[in-house]
Amino acid sequence: MYPNRNASHEAAVRHLIEDWAAAVRAKDFAGILRHHSPEILMFDVPPPLQSKGLEAYRRTWELFFAWAHDPVVYDIVAMNITCDENVAFVAAVMRCSGKETSGEDIDLKFRLTVGLQRIDGRWTVMHEHHSIPATQ
Amino acid sequence: MYPNRNASHEAAVRHLIEDWAAAVRAKDFAGILRHHSPEILMFDVPPPLQSKGLEAYRRTWELFFAWAHDPVVYDIVAMNITCDENVAFVAAVMRCSGKETSGEDIDLKFRLTVGLQRIDGRWTVMHEHHSIPATQ
Repeated sequence: MYPNRNASHEAAVRHLIEDWAAAVRAKDFAGILRHHSPEILMFDVPPPLQSKGLEAYRRTWELFFAWAHDPVVYDIVAMNITCDENVAFVAAVMRCSGKETSGEDIDLKFRLTVGLQRIDGRWTVMHEHHSIPATQ
Repeated sequence: MYPNRNASHEAAVRHLIEDWAAAVRAKDFAGILRHHSPEILMFDVPPPLQSKGLEAYRRTWELFFAWAHDPVVYDIVAMNITCDENVAFVAAVMRCSGKETSGEDIDLKFRLTVGLQRIDGRWTVMHEHHSIPATQ
């Protein structure tokens, strides 16, 4: 969908996101955190409004795994990557499943945007934004 | 917060986002759409899950203005810009206010991520992701 300036950087970013999603499925915290900045800014599906830094980011995954079914469903349904030499963003539709506080099992499609910067030659996740549409 | 590679591009992106937010406050559709790609991919606060293309993007603003107070509140509370020569992303906390279907007036903080690409020398918005945390 988006024109891309650099196919090899796009492939590296795609690989990073696919590896990260696989780490989520494996509940592998080291893999989940591997490519993230100490200054990661996380906008997650549940509250709070924002989480800053790796420790707060890690806690959002503890919350997710408390909710998620086992084995964990965490699939990339569709993903667009836009990247240059040093900055990239990814917009994706994702799928997961878990148990609500009501006890109900649900399959959820959600939206994911990731912002990355190449620092010292390594693609690094600076920002993630996960959400579902608001219901009123 | 983020290291930036190019101050003049960062200033151009900041100016674009500030002008766009001002256009929202003025209900100026031409200004809202001025820097957007025909292929804009929008993840909005209310459903649907995603909106593709300028016409669908325009409709998300008609929905917003039907909800928003008049005069429109649409403020940038905090904004981080990460940019290179040709790709940028913006992560922001925003504030707006409107009337719920219940009739209740609410002030709302929300999260905004914007992805941009410089095409033929013009910074162009390819992607927006607006959300509030889910409540269960």
